[in-house]
Amino acid sequence: MIGMIAAVLTTSSFIPQIFKAYRSKRLDDLSPYLMLLFIAGASMWFIYGVFKADIIIVVANMLALAFNSTLLIMKVVYANRLEQNR
Amino acid sequence: MIGMIAAVLTTSSFIPQIFKAYRSKRLDDLSPYLMLLFIAGASMWFIYGVFKADIIIVVANMLALAFNSTLLIMKVVYANRLEQNR
Repeated sequence: MIGMIAAVLTTSSFIPQIFKAYRSKRLDDLSPYLMLLFIAGASMWFIYGVFKADIIIVVANMLALAFNSTLLIMKVVYANRLEQNR
Repeated sequence: MIGMIAAVLTTSSFIPQIFKAYRSKRLDDLSPYLMLLFIAGASMWFIYGVFKADIIIVVANMLALAFNSTLLIMKVVYANRLEQNR
């Protein structure tokens, strides 16, 4: 139960970041390594969850993967747009 | 073993963000809710780890807590500095 709340909190933490970035069209201050390392880590947690047959870990990390990939793509797209407008 | 690699990756993902912010003195594009939700989530994972007597979860989330608190404090400090310079 506490694991489920923990998973919901850490996974959902990326949602307000996505909304903020979508509004401002800026992710300059965010390090791409944050997303890259988190994507690598969440992939490992996902495999770990599959081996342990732990549905919470599997689902939480699938979502974390999706959110972080979205942020990384947004960062690249917005950075390119900024470059073109210069 | 795979859990340990996963924990190292997701926890360490905040380190490059701290370095980047330290260099640029800017965290404007980072949502404070990312840090706040992650701090709340990592606290829960920490308690979960204590109950499960899982040292990896305990240590990883202690570090994640420290890193995210550092980022949140940096964000507040840099935002105030920017405000004063206006």
